[in-house]
Amino acid sequence: MSRHRKPGWNEPAVEALRVTATGPIAEFDAESTPGFDGDKAFGETLLAERGEVLADLQELLYANGRAGDNRSVLLVLQGMDTAGKGGIVRHVGGLLDPQGLAIKGFGKPTAEELEHDFLWRIHRALPPAGRIGIFDRSHYEDVLPVRVHNLVPESEWSGRYELINRFERELIESGTTIIKCALVVSKDEQRVRLTERLDRPDKYWKYNPGDIDERGFWDDYLQAYQAIFDKTDQDAAPWHLIPANKKWFARLAVCELLIDALEKLELDWPEADFDVEAERARVAAMD
Amino acid sequence: MSRHRKPGWNEPAVEALRVTATGPIAEFDAESTPGFDGDKAFGETLLAERGEVLADLQELLYANGRAGDNRSVLLVLQGMDTAGKGGIVRHVGGLLDPQGLAIKGFGKPTAEELEHDFLWRIHRALPPAGRIGIFDRSHYEDVLPVRVHNLVPESEWSGRYELINRFERELIESGTTIIKCALVVSKDEQRVRLTERLDRPDKYWKYNPGDIDERGFWDDYLQAYQAIFDKTDQDAAPWHLIPANKKWFARLAVCELLIDALEKLELDWPEADFDVEAERARVAAMD
Repeated sequence: MSRHRKPGWNEPAVEALRVTATGPIAEFDAESTPGFDGDKAFGETLLAERGEVLADLQELLYANGRAGDNRSVLLVLQGMDTAGKGGIVRHVGGLLDPQGLAIKGFGKPTAEELEHDFLWRIHRALPPAGRIGIFDRSHYEDVLPVRVHNLVPESEWSGRYELINRFERELIESGTTIIKCALVVSKDEQRVRLTERLDRPDKYWKYNPGDIDERGFWDDYLQAYQAIFDKTDQDAAPWHLIPANKKWFARLAVCELLIDALEKLELDWPEADFDVEAERARVAAMD
Repeated sequence: MSRHRKPGWNEPAVEALRVTATGPIAEFDAESTPGFDGDKAFGETLLAERGEVLADLQELLYANGRAGDNRSVLLVLQGMDTAGKGGIVRHVGGLLDPQGLAIKGFGKPTAEELEHDFLWRIHRALPPAGRIGIFDRSHYEDVLPVRVHNLVPESEWSGRYELINRFERELIESGTTIIKCALVVSKDEQRVRLTERLDRPDKYWKYNPGDIDERGFWDDYLQAYQAIFDKTDQDAAPWHLIPANKKWFARLAVCELLIDALEKLELDWPEADFDVEAERARVAAMD
């Protein structure tokens, strides 16, 4: 159903952007638009149209969740600072009914979170039945900055890939569709975006001096990302590289991945769990 | 700032819709548009414009929350079945960045919730600093169906009004602006909406046979609502009647109430908590 050719797409996003198709992140072009041959104006028009398709599918998922179907969808967003994770939440999440969303941002673990294993806070934030969850950062932080800075010993973080795979397999078995996206911004574009945050007082709040420190570890981060793709890309929980220099494309691409995931659930409106004719009679008879 | 005349509004929504201005709910016209003299087409255009104003104010609130300001906004939605609470969440909440929203629907209390006092589940769902919370039903359920059906003894529910006032005063003191809205649908319009849910298989999931039973208690509910307004309308946590037969007007009105509440916070972009010049130099020097 999701495999037919879409306007503007010469290959479905879900295939063109899969890490197994894009090649290594270190050589990935953050300006590119793999699988898509339209320009910005066309992409924006298309996003508005496809956003309605997505919203309709979300309502179907929500309706089924209310009717006892335990399925849900989880979109995991990772990416370097300024890659636009928040923009995806705002502009793709913003296409949806907020009632059917479960959004969670993961920052540095709190004292309470550190008293538990690294997946504890993730479990608590999983989308309930019928919802689309969006994680702005995720359990992958525990093999990204944690690995780059050895915040725990290597013997500990190196075991986490397998723990993550096992965790995600359990999630999938319990009805959650997982879509993992790494937003890729180029080093030059990151400079532009950091500079802008310092030039505009309405952007100061987004600026964090620590981002510059992290930029110094750019290549280490690329390695840590590649390790994730090599070790945790699964057919049932695939990783996608989302080129993020062109914000309009990143949004369109993530929208398409969500549509694809929802279409694969082959949802239909739930049956009435009451006698429709009897209820019609009650309504007709009522005062 | 919020008191100037707005296009289409001959009186600010916050004044025209306040329960002290509208008169008793039993005599309230759910078809009316108090304070507003535009038609549907104009109202919809205006909502799109005002939605952008609201989204900008939300970003300000969020930015301040990130910078340590503890303020938040809580929109409480009540209303009879089919009044359109979910539509407000979808269409007014949908104007906003979902990252800055904290939405919670309250159904029948769970077994765990019943083991605590009635405000326990409410506390847990309050919006964090910088967020706009939307409650689809709320602590007022504990003096609405609970009162109408005497789900607890009158000696118990009758004490809750004062507990609610005290709770809301504490909330306000800790930085939360509270806006309370009762969506008012007419009995005839409810019949139309219930009928529609039975005529369309894509609406079955919204139909609940219990809604017809509740309709039998219409006048008791009006009394229970009036008691709420009489006992819990405070200048700092005012109640508004939102006529909801015209969905476009209900959405526009709630949007205006939120704008008014946010404008009164007189927010400005947070100061940089770093040395802007020093950071510019670091960015310029970086690889």
